[in-house]
Amino acid sequence: MAQTRDKRENLMEKIVSLAKRRGFIFPGSEIYGGLANSWDYGPLGVELKNNIKQLWWKKFVRGRDDMVGIDTALIMNPKVWEASGHLSEFSDPLSECKKCKKRFKTGELGNNNKQCPNCDGKLSSPRKFNLMFKTCLGPSEDASDIAYFRPETAQGMFVDFKNVLNTSRKRIPFGIAQVGKAFRNEITPGNFIFRTREFEQMEIEYFIREADWEKYFEYWRGQVVNWIKDLGIDTKKIHEREIEESERAHYSKKTIDFDYDFPFGASELYGLAYRTDFDLKNHEKFSGQNLKYKDPETGKEFWPHVIEPTWGVDRSVLAVLAEAYHEEEDRIILKLTPKLAPYKIAVFPLLANKPELVKLARIIYDNLRPQFMTAWDDRGNIGKRYYSQDEIGTPFCVTVDFDSLEDEKVTVRDRDTMKQERILISKLAEYFNNKLNV
Amino acid sequence: MAQTRDKRENLMEKIVSLAKRRGFIFPGSEIYGGLANSWDYGPLGVELKNNIKQLWWKKFVRGRDDMVGIDTALIMNPKVWEASGHLSEFSDPLSECKKCKKRFKTGELGNNNKQCPNCDGKLSSPRKFNLMFKTCLGPSEDASDIAYFRPETAQGMFVDFKNVLNTSRKRIPFGIAQVGKAFRNEITPGNFIFRTREFEQMEIEYFIREADWEKYFEYWRGQVVNWIKDLGIDTKKIHEREIEESERAHYSKKTIDFDYDFPFGASELYGLAYRTDFDLKNHEKFSGQNLKYKDPETGKEFWPHVIEPTWGVDRSVLAVLAEAYHEEEDRIILKLTPKLAPYKIAVFPLLANKPELVKLARIIYDNLRPQFMTAWDDRGNIGKRYYSQDEIGTPFCVTVDFDSLEDEKVTVRDRDTMKQERILISKLAEYFNNKLNV
Repeated sequence: MAQTRDKRENLMEKIVSLAKRRGFIFPGSEIYGGLANSWDYGPLGVELKNNIKQLWWKKFVRGRDDMVGIDTALIMNPKVWEASGHLSEFSDPLSECKKCKKRFKTGELGNNNKQCPNCDGKLSSPRKFNLMFKTCLGPSEDASDIAYFRPETAQGMFVDFKNVLNTSRKRIPFGIAQVGKAFRNEITPGNFIFRTREFEQMEIEYFIREADWEKYFEYWRGQVVNWIKDLGIDTKKIHEREIEESERAHYSKKTIDFDYDFPFGASELYGLAYRTDFDLKNHEKFSGQNLKYKDPETGKEFWPHVIEPTWGVDRSVLAVLAEAYHEEEDRIILKLTPKLAPYKIAVFPLLANKPELVKLARIIYDNLRPQFMTAWDDRGNIGKRYYSQDEIGTPFCVTVDFDSLEDEKVTVRDRDTMKQERILISKLAEYFNNKLNV
Repeated sequence: MAQTRDKRENLMEKIVSLAKRRGFIFPGSEIYGGLANSWDYGPLGVELKNNIKQLWWKKFVRGRDDMVGIDTALIMNPKVWEASGHLSEFSDPLSECKKCKKRFKTGELGNNNKQCPNCDGKLSSPRKFNLMFKTCLGPSEDASDIAYFRPETAQGMFVDFKNVLNTSRKRIPFGIAQVGKAFRNEITPGNFIFRTREFEQMEIEYFIREADWEKYFEYWRGQVVNWIKDLGIDTKKIHEREIEESERAHYSKKTIDFDYDFPFGASELYGLAYRTDFDLKNHEKFSGQNLKYKDPETGKEFWPHVIEPTWGVDRSVLAVLAEAYHEEEDRIILKLTPKLAPYKIAVFPLLANKPELVKLARIIYDNLRPQFMTAWDDRGNIGKRYYSQDEIGTPFCVTVDFDSLEDEKVTVRDRDTMKQERILISKLAEYFNNKLNV
């Protein structure tokens, strides 16, 4: 057991190190000593992350008749958070040291919850601390100008429900999807990009009749699993865990977490919640606007119930990296599914100082690039270039050698099998179209 | 002149109305009376906006050898804003009323700058008001935990410069690109999505040798104009305006604004600035980290100079809508360039109550959808459906009629010319591939 943990912690270090070394993810504001577990996506990381988001949008929004997307403001009217319950419920109990004034999560203090772990001072009784980021709109800094950065994307879908319904003329069951940033003033962020104070969500609010909730809960459970397979994640490492009532969010009648075996232990990757009609009902109550759905056949009005699958973008990136990371005797490979790989192909001239090889390789590179993300490398020997591309997950490498000048063929090498094939230059695009299935 | 202004203001109202009516853009938090000129992108708006962002990324990042993308945190270490000058310089002078406590932009008060326009109270002397959104990280709310949401994406590129350089091994000239949100606590936001407190930027920091700055300034001026053409905007409505020294940002040695003839008047759409080596030099000074570039041939170290083209995403959306909006006798058309149109094609069965027509139309719809964003409409008569698709800019409508059942052809109708062609169903994908040039 101890050994397993060591190996896993080791894996986490390796991923963080690779991510920084190769330009996937850098510590945020690193030259200033960082900032409270914030992270920046580098040149390869942004491509990986965008590939995940675009794959999701294609599958769940553009690919479906019963879904529309939106993109709502990060700062919403504070009344939204009154109605949603976030102003009163979204908080952690904290104990403050009367001496050094530091605050600690009461739940994490254990038995010794009267004494400060920092200076041994006396701790106050627990006080609630809201997790939303507060700011002031406009110049006055009056209490009336206080606003919050959204702690979830979901409320955008509820607040805009009637506008979307009126303009898209969808009939239930239908969903509203959104990808965007959310913010939580976590007291203990950590585990690389797993828990950060700003993070990105992909979220769907799926509107249904109350009677159908179990059916659609099961349906979306299946869709979440499908998506996990799309990412190339082994579903054996996924554990569905139903959340007990005492731990569920105030709005939810049933919640399942999809835990993934992260290197630091099994933890929430995605979530699925039955939110009932809590949100629409409350927004109607707080706004005075009719947020009911009118049945087109019977004319009867009612608040639709809601099934909500939620996907963390950053957690998806982390799970994909953890799943893809492999070590073999003399190489590190990111076995990314080709759809997600930042580069699909790398093109090399065998020798960088032979203009005829460079010229032909360049033509091939320029031809492939408009269709596939393609890297160029002419440094060091071919072995080093393979090593370098394996480490960032490039599925195929193309080498132009002296034979290429004669037989008009190049060597295509497969990342996972390391097998090499000679392919006609004129057939390369077709070859990769088939292989990459794009 | 008065008439021109009326017509233009009228155009703005029409665009705002169409945007809401058809699901491009809704007022933010509308059911709660809105929130200080915030806006949400609806089902069609998010597609249009994403199309713009993806076109930009494809052109300037994936399509170029000398560019890499990044995506950095919205909340950066506050020292970033000391080094960049935003903490000291990025502010507006405000006068506060001693009676009603309201604050006003001193520059907008005109001659009567001692008396409150609201209550006639006495105004204070001007005081600086920082435009960054302030918040607190962590539970303590100490001054040491104050942080700011970034007022521009640019600083991410400078702070991560060394990490990007080390991992991408690019040589100057090269650029770092980013698309993302930025936040400015504008005192007077307005003009729909033109000036909002949260907004999205597409930005490039292009690193060069000092001696080359004029050359690359001209080069990027050309690239900005190219992009404007890509959006389908008439360059006659673009006015390049060099900003005088007294109005330039503190870091800039030369700035050009690209003004567009918005319905409310010519105003900044994009900007191009020569930032010198101001940012890298200052970050080196404030962080103590070496942010110089080492010439691979001479080994000499220096701070690269920077050309910065900046594109507002929301302003791009507004300009594209304004440019595309056309009225003809009996219809409204959004003449969007097909690349940007939310839907490329709409498919109609001539009559919704004829199962054989619906069935065939459905097959065509399902076949086109994986390749092209395709809408379905079976409501009302064909004329109404054309009207509806013209108004949202769908370039082509496909109608399945009774003849289709015999001749295996459908009617394809062009949005702009209203011309109709009969096309073989089996040739439709090819037809649209050519027409839509995707």
